[in-house]
Amino acid sequence: MDKSFKYNRLSKDDAAILMVDHQAGLISLVQDFSPNEFKNNVLALAACGKYFKLPTILTTSFEEGPNGPLVPELKEMFPDAPYIARPGNINAWDNEDFVNAIKKTGRKQLIIAGVVTEVCVAFPALSAIEAGYEVFVVSDASGTFNEVTRDAAWMRMQAAGVQMMSWFGVACELHRDWRNDIEGLGALFSNYLPNYRNLMTSYFAITKK
Amino acid sequence: MDKSFKYNRLSKDDAAILMVDHQAGLISLVQDFSPNEFKNNVLALAACGKYFKLPTILTTSFEEGPNGPLVPELKEMFPDAPYIARPGNINAWDNEDFVNAIKKTGRKQLIIAGVVTEVCVAFPALSAIEAGYEVFVVSDASGTFNEVTRDAAWMRMQAAGVQMMSWFGVACELHRDWRNDIEGLGALFSNYLPNYRNLMTSYFAITKK
Amino acid sequence: MDKSFKYNRLSKDDAAILMVDHQAGLISLVQDFSPNEFKNNVLALAACGKYFKLPTILTTSFEEGPNGPLVPELKEMFPDAPYIARPGNINAWDNEDFVNAIKKTGRKQLIIAGVVTEVCVAFPALSAIEAGYEVFVVSDASGTFNEVTRDAAWMRMQAAGVQMMSWFGVACELHRDWRNDIEGLGALFSNYLPNYRNLMTSYFAITKK
Amino acid sequence: MDKSFKYNRLSKDDAAILMVDHQAGLISLVQDFSPNEFKNNVLALAACGKYFKLPTILTTSFEEGPNGPLVPELKEMFPDAPYIARPGNINAWDNEDFVNAIKKTGRKQLIIAGVVTEVCVAFPALSAIEAGYEVFVVSDASGTFNEVTRDAAWMRMQAAGVQMMSWFGVACELHRDWRNDIEGLGALFSNYLPNYRNLMTSYFAITKK
Amino acid sequence: MDKSFKYNRLSKDDAAILMVDHQAGLISLVQDFSPNEFKNNVLALAACGKYFKLPTILTTSFEEGPNGPLVPELKEMFPDAPYIARPGNINAWDNEDFVNAIKKTGRKQLIIAGVVTEVCVAFPALSAIEAGYEVFVVSDASGTFNEVTRDAAWMRMQAAGVQMMSWFGVACELHRDWRNDIEGLGALFSNYLPNYRNLMTSYFAITKK
Amino acid sequence: MDKSFKYNRLSKDDAAILMVDHQAGLISLVQDFSPNEFKNNVLALAACGKYFKLPTILTTSFEEGPNGPLVPELKEMFPDAPYIARPGNINAWDNEDFVNAIKKTGRKQLIIAGVVTEVCVAFPALSAIEAGYEVFVVSDASGTFNEVTRDAAWMRMQAAGVQMMSWFGVACELHRDWRNDIEGLGALFSNYLPNYRNLMTSYFAITKK
Amino acid sequence: MDKSFKYNRLSKDDAAILMVDHQAGLISLVQDFSPNEFKNNVLALAACGKYFKLPTILTTSFEEGPNGPLVPELKEMFPDAPYIARPGNINAWDNEDFVNAIKKTGRKQLIIAGVVTEVCVAFPALSAIEAGYEVFVVSDASGTFNEVTRDAAWMRMQAAGVQMMSWFGVACELHRDWRNDIEGLGALFSNYLPNYRNLMTSYFAITKK
Amino acid sequence: MDKSFKYNRLSKDDAAILMVDHQAGLISLVQDFSPNEFKNNVLALAACGKYFKLPTILTTSFEEGPNGPLVPELKEMFPDAPYIARPGNINAWDNEDFVNAIKKTGRKQLIIAGVVTEVCVAFPALSAIEAGYEVFVVSDASGTFNEVTRDAAWMRMQAAGVQMMSWFGVACELHRDWRNDIEGLGALFSNYLPNYRNLMTSYFAITKK
Repeated sequence: MDKSFKYNRLSKDDAAILMVDHQAGLISLVQDFSPNEFKNNVLALAACGKYFKLPTILTTSFEEGPNGPLVPELKEMFPDAPYIARPGNINAWDNEDFVNAIKKTGRKQLIIAGVVTEVCVAFPALSAIEAGYEVFVVSDASGTFNEVTRDAAWMRMQAAGVQMMSWFGVACELHRDWRNDIEGLGALFSNYLPNYRNLMTSYFAITKK
Repeated sequence: MDKSFKYNRLSKDDAAILMVDHQAGLISLVQDFSPNEFKNNVLALAACGKYFKLPTILTTSFEEGPNGPLVPELKEMFPDAPYIARPGNINAWDNEDFVNAIKKTGRKQLIIAGVVTEVCVAFPALSAIEAGYEVFVVSDASGTFNEVTRDAAWMRMQAAGVQMMSWFGVACELHRDWRNDIEGLGALFSNYLPNYRNLMTSYFAITKK
Repeated sequence: MDKSFKYNRLSKDDAAILMVDHQAGLISLVQDFSPNEFKNNVLALAACGKYFKLPTILTTSFEEGPNGPLVPELKEMFPDAPYIARPGNINAWDNEDFVNAIKKTGRKQLIIAGVVTEVCVAFPALSAIEAGYEVFVVSDASGTFNEVTRDAAWMRMQAAGVQMMSWFGVACELHRDWRNDIEGLGALFSNYLPNYRNLMTSYFAITKK
Repeated sequence: MDKSFKYNRLSKDDAAILMVDHQAGLISLVQDFSPNEFKNNVLALAACGKYFKLPTILTTSFEEGPNGPLVPELKEMFPDAPYIARPGNINAWDNEDFVNAIKKTGRKQLIIAGVVTEVCVAFPALSAIEAGYEVFVVSDASGTFNEVTRDAAWMRMQAAGVQMMSWFGVACELHRDWRNDIEGLGALFSNYLPNYRNLMTSYFAITKK
Repeated sequence: MDKSFKYNRLSKDDAAILMVDHQAGLISLVQDFSPNEFKNNVLALAACGKYFKLPTILTTSFEEGPNGPLVPELKEMFPDAPYIARPGNINAWDNEDFVNAIKKTGRKQLIIAGVVTEVCVAFPALSAIEAGYEVFVVSDASGTFNEVTRDAAWMRMQAAGVQMMSWFGVACELHRDWRNDIEGLGALFSNYLPNYRNLMTSYFAITKK
Repeated sequence: MDKSFKYNRLSKDDAAILMVDHQAGLISLVQDFSPNEFKNNVLALAACGKYFKLPTILTTSFEEGPNGPLVPELKEMFPDAPYIARPGNINAWDNEDFVNAIKKTGRKQLIIAGVVTEVCVAFPALSAIEAGYEVFVVSDASGTFNEVTRDAAWMRMQAAGVQMMSWFGVACELHRDWRNDIEGLGALFSNYLPNYRNLMTSYFAITKK
Repeated sequence: MDKSFKYNRLSKDDAAILMVDHQAGLISLVQDFSPNEFKNNVLALAACGKYFKLPTILTTSFEEGPNGPLVPELKEMFPDAPYIARPGNINAWDNEDFVNAIKKTGRKQLIIAGVVTEVCVAFPALSAIEAGYEVFVVSDASGTFNEVTRDAAWMRMQAAGVQMMSWFGVACELHRDWRNDIEGLGALFSNYLPNYRNLMTSYFAITKK
Repeated sequence: MDKSFKYNRLSKDDAAILMVDHQAGLISLVQDFSPNEFKNNVLALAACGKYFKLPTILTTSFEEGPNGPLVPELKEMFPDAPYIARPGNINAWDNEDFVNAIKKTGRKQLIIAGVVTEVCVAFPALSAIEAGYEVFVVSDASGTFNEVTRDAAWMRMQAAGVQMMSWFGVACELHRDWRNDIEGLGALFSNYLPNYRNLMTSYFAITKK
């Protein structure tokens, strides 16, 4: 137990999102989530980026080849985001443009998700920790071959100081207080949490009477 | 083994869809699918109804109370469909308006999905079999409390002659031949099967070059 | 597929419940449900018996020995029910008093639950089918050693014509129409379905405003 | 549903056990049970054979080769049982000595277990059904590669009229009444059901006081 | 390995319980426990609070909206407990009344449970650690969307020094010695551990003879 | 139970194999097997076709589009097999060339595997049953979206008289007797059953000494 | 990462085994292992104690009541071991006789197993760490209510410096070199690892030829 | 969290692979992977060794006895690798030849895989950490009895500073940049990742047109 634990929460003013290699081909390798579940989580995290106006950086590996292009929804959601199509570096952190794009944001908290977890997520996560960033990996927006490789990747990252999150945890830690904007956050949850949408549907059905 | 098996396939001209009790409150009881998975499957089945222009009948139980209203997406997709808000009958087949709506379609193949499987699906399914209809239950657009109650419900229905399907199986059995409409079916799959969408994304990325 | 399927629904006037060997010792053998889940389901089925005023018959095997006494809740819920402490018959149907108690009810639909599924449930279920009864086994109020023995027992019973149900399915098929008694059925669900209770709590919290 | 179901219970006077290919090598292929679980179940079934004095027939396939010898415990438990080391027939029923050994027992109810389920169990089970025997497959004393191949094998056998059992179900159906021998059956359960043994341990600890 | 580990056990005189956002609507989001299991665990933890007379603090988020009211059982069990209906703070620790209520207890050991784990539990847990409290999260009385988000939340909390417990562990660590009160603790276990109740039922059935 | 069950075993002289839509794109939709497991099973079934010299028919759907080409291994194993690239028929049985290729084999036992189970396998399987063929579906060489759609597909096929098999069951039922060819069958098993290969490795290591 | 990690292996001369509360009643609470699996592991660990002649200490809690007596096999295996029937202390370490018995062994490495994991194992494990012992918890000979409470208990112990082991790992780390005694260790494995026994059976079958 | 984390990546010039006890007999003990999955992963890791020209050391324990010989594929892939058939040491690190072989490589990063995880992998891993090496355990090329013993072994190793990897992570961390050799790495992935091969098949099918 670390007696001097400091809880540096995610802050809208200090966080950036890195979406690494969510490419049409690579996603077909993901087997630790159902395809619907995974798609929902990735888009939910992206929606957090938009909603909280976080600097968001997109990167892909070898888009021209079998890995396939970035999924089009992400392109559409972030038309002006830095987009680094890496010519070959497996660890995105080895790409100068990528690191520069991060530096340019001036942010110190990096929220990372990608495919596959033990490579495209873990490698830049470890590099970022080493470089002095706070790193938050979004566990449910990162996918890999199976639960064994996932568990191993999580352990390796945890040991290095990475904090494991979910997209919902990211959203809540950034928002802090419902009073900052009830409708906006409600819409975000309603779009990506079907059971929350159901709660809202029932609630408004009764109260509008 | 039934030596004289007759394979009566689902036909666009002879099938109707019954969506039973997909209500905002009741859906929160479903635990044999993740909420995202279930929502996707229900909407996919509904999209099949629209795409194949099948007569579709909506029914709910006690919408005013805790069961909650029909999920709004279904209402929007079928604004003109018969909509039977049952005043109390648990088995929708006990409601004359519901049965009359079915009779009016003139269809003999009933595709049923609903919440919860062993009641809102199984009861009308058994009644329909008894009434001489062919019944196809959409397994992945019907939800219940857990896998034990699901398995029991499936067994009871199977023993009565119900055919168990998935929404994808329904779509394919209705379409019969890609040449009937490649784009339309492709769009349907792309919207509700993320991995199929990925295949298409990669394919078009390469071929457009 | 049986073209001449007849859907004989459970009827309040024709059904009886048989609770077989829900004894304190034997229940510790059950591993295909968590203890809380199983207790809840057994009491829920018993509550159905009380609510619908179905003749209910209790039986135990070797109560004095390691099998242990009937769980006290059941005794308390049915103080006047026929209670057959079998001196040794493993299949309750081999006990004349048990069969006579059933005959005396005049009912033809037998709802059976017990511990363990492949013996205390399956044996009397098969005997009852042979004797011409309609048999409905409550899958979630019957427990056994593991899922392999459960699946095997279900298959054997299904092949003999037993219908697999859940306690919730039993309640709904007996009740038929919410208008027969909204409050009573609501209370039953609220007591044994925590998520349904939550729906009601939320609903009444809003509407009482 | 079969209106004319006849419940022919297992009878001590009409049943025989066939242990098929429980060989040291082949058992290492079993992955649908843990090794401890499987060993316990196989020995439990064998112990039933001894306890109820059922004619028991052992058979192996290619003992000299990689399949390995029969597990020694079975040899020791049934030193005088017919032991057919098949020279090559995969379906034991294709071996005349095996079928003759069965005929010689004069029994009409065959209890079968073996490795692997879809071959060494299913093939003779289907042959026996065709030959007019009643067949009871002991699901938990038969093992195979994984749950997919198990489920498929069970379905094929069920469709042919095989009855799926567990070793505990076999024991109880044969014994019929505890009064036939309390101590003997208690010992059998105590040896192969650790939780039943615990019930007995607690019971006798208290009552001996 | 921490060579200088100090085992500060939970103490009746130094512990307080924080029940965070166990609201009727939010609980319908929980999918990493069955509803019965979760309800039982939450009430069991609450019963510990009552039994050990621990200061207990209730808090909710946005009770008027879709999140729904606190589950009524908790309200009834702690009619006089501080009850902080937060106007908007997602992290309860951001609410001054909540922190003041904790300070007023004078306790340094905080036992926390809530819905959902990675937000309503993890956020105040991390804040409390930072503030110098010892924090014990009750794993089985805290629920979330699925096992992936649960695992990630546990890892994040563990890394910060939170100790993961179960309600049963909490009860035992507080009680220390059965001789402090056999009947009281026995009743607590009997009410929330069905298999323990069965042990007691069997025991008293035999010994009362 | 079917008293007049006839066990028509698979015969080398009467069986043919249909490999339906094992295409590079479609296989990425399979999630009820791990990719390695599925690839192994498909190739193992194909190897059975070669080893037993069964007429084998390959068919694909829309190879030019996103579904992708037949996996190259199958093409290489069966360079001279009838290869029907269907222009659009979803049910292969709707394609005259496919049915003619089957008729030309003169075989009456059809062994079918494909992707996805509820469409590419189930549709031609049901058509073949109706046309009077005996149909054996290879459960572990057929894949689909998840276990729910698999289970539903299996139930529908079973009810129509399809027999569920595994590739190992197919191999054993065709071979009948090891003496027909020990080395050949041993090699087949060694190539596709790693644990069987290990048995052989150990065996030959010792015996060659 | 701890740069100065010291690997203090378990040593026959420095280790002692503590078997905590393996009582007939309490074991019926264990649901994270099947009963056969758990019994096998507990006896395997005990057999290690005997084989390596480790000082072994038995303790129970409230044997006279519902918790039940120590399982008789353990009593028989260690007739002369210190046996502390605690009058009420839940944490065995609170019992002076227990701690004195440990001190008397002069050992510094404590191998602990018990029921239930988060109480009877974790409490003395944490106390022992605090007291300066090296603690090795045998994960597969310790059982609890479910996997959630198990995971939480493991995390808490790991954070305090406990090392998680399996009985097989304990045996191997103590033995160090097969040459110390091939037959003895082989017999130990053969008795508690059915698949290892099968390897030996096959091996000796071939080599004795 | 370790503020001064240093990310020492695996380097082609500083890493060596240790393959420990992948023997034909021992592998039959592995039950936490399917046999096909495990074989694929072990060969994939070996292929990485070859492709990156890493010094690779093979070792076995008691090859002459029931443990069986090294699987032949590994022998063939590394005909000139140091091959230490240990005469009895369970921890390979206790064998001087083994440690000398490692020293002779001059490498400081050890990639370890073996059977079984908690012994043949964990023991040398802990020894190597103590000796000052960086240790990377390949989680999916190491197998054991079940997931409980696996989880315990991983925890023990993690606590000592071992880094958990997958073979795919190893390959990617060593390769660093696709531009170093596209074809070679593509071939490696294609051989051991069926879904990646499918991506390539589809890609080349389209682009070659």
